[in-house]
Amino acid sequence: MMEQLIKQIEFIKEIDKLKYVLRRTCLLHSDRRENDAEHSWHLAMMAIILAEHANERVDLLKVLKMVLIHDIVEIDSGDVFIYDTKQNHTNTGEELKAARRIFGMLPPAQAEALVEIWEEFEAGQTAEAKFARALDRLEPLLQNTSNDGGTWKEFDVRYEQVVAKKSVIARGSEQLWAFAEDMLKQNLEKGILKK
Amino acid sequence: MMEQLIKQIEFIKEIDKLKYVLRRTCLLHSDRRENDAEHSWHLAMMAIILAEHANERVDLLKVLKMVLIHDIVEIDSGDVFIYDTKQNHTNTGEELKAARRIFGMLPPAQAEALVEIWEEFEAGQTAEAKFARALDRLEPLLQNTSNDGGTWKEFDVRYEQVVAKKSVIARGSEQLWAFAEDMLKQNLEKGILKK
Repeated sequence: MMEQLIKQIEFIKEIDKLKYVLRRTCLLHSDRRENDAEHSWHLAMMAIILAEHANERVDLLKVLKMVLIHDIVEIDSGDVFIYDTKQNHTNTGEELKAARRIFGMLPPAQAEALVEIWEEFEAGQTAEAKFARALDRLEPLLQNTSNDGGTWKEFDVRYEQVVAKKSVIARGSEQLWAFAEDMLKQNLEKGILKK
Repeated sequence: MMEQLIKQIEFIKEIDKLKYVLRRTCLLHSDRRENDAEHSWHLAMMAIILAEHANERVDLLKVLKMVLIHDIVEIDSGDVFIYDTKQNHTNTGEELKAARRIFGMLPPAQAEALVEIWEEFEAGQTAEAKFARALDRLEPLLQNTSNDGGTWKEFDVRYEQVVAKKSVIARGSEQLWAFAEDMLKQNLEKGILKK
C-alpha cells in the first residue's frame, strides 16, 4: 500500500507542471494568459453548473475526470493553438506518448483507467466526451468576447472559422450552442469578429 | 431555460476571479505563489488519485464538488493564512456572506445545493468533508517540503505547530497521515523544520 502511495504522490508532484503550460487565450477582461490548471478547474466548474444542458444525460463524475485530466499531456507536448494551420490540433501521436509517460507514473490499474478516460475524451464519441468537448470550446468564447476579440483579433481569425470550430458545441449541447451562436452573432454585429 | 442559462454563465464569469486570489504557498520548487484556481484543480486531481486511502468509503463526486468550490468564497473574503494568529482561519462569518453572494448568482436550487456542500466542507464532519480537508492540508506540505521550508521558514512556524495543523489529515485518512508524519519527521531531521 505504501509503495502504491509513493507512486501516486510522485504523479501528484509531476502534474504541478500543468500550472506552467500557458494557453493562447487570456483570463476574462485581462491580458494575462490562462494556464492549463486554471483552465481545467474552470471547465470542471462549468461541468457541475451546466450538466443539465447536455443533450444526453451524462455521468457527471466521468465528465469531471475528463476535463480535469484532458490537458495533462500538454506537460510534455505543449498547448497547440486551435486555429494553428501548421500543426494539427487533433494530431494525438505525441500526446499519446505523453499520456503513457505521465499517467504511467501511477500504479498500473489507475494509469490504465486514466489513459482510457483521456482517449475517450479525445475520440469525442460518448455523451460525456461530447459534453466535455463542448465546455472546452465554450470557455475561450467567453474569454475572447470579454477581451474585444482576444486571440481571434490577434491571429486574424474570421467569423466563419470561429463558427466552424465552435459549432461542435452542438454535439454536446444544443442549448449551449444556441447561446454560443447568439454570442458570436453579437460579436459580428459589434465588429469584434469580422467576415 | 435561457434565463437559467444566463444566470449560470454570469456565475461562470464571476468565478474567473479565483485565478487572482493568491495563496501564501508557492508551486513546487518555485517562488511563484499558487492561486486558488490552480490549488482547487490540484486538490481535485488528488481526490481522484487518492480516494482509495480515505478512512471511510467516500462519494468521489461529492469530494470533487467540495474541493472545486471550497475556496470560491475567497473571491470576496481573501485567503487567510493557516498560521495567522490575528485572524481566525475558521471564522466563517465573512465567508458565509461571500458564499451567499457568489453562489446566489445561480438559479436558487443550484445556489442552495452549492452553499450546502460548502458548509459541509467547512463543518468537516462527514466522510467526504474529512477527506477533502485532509487533501487541503497535504498539498502545502508537499509544496513547503520542496521549497526548503517555504512558508514555514518565511513565517517562522515550528515543527509542533505544523504537526498540530496537519494531524487533522488523520481524520480523513490514516494512511495519508502516516505518510505526512514521516515527511514531517524527515523535514525535522534535515533542519527544514525546527522544534
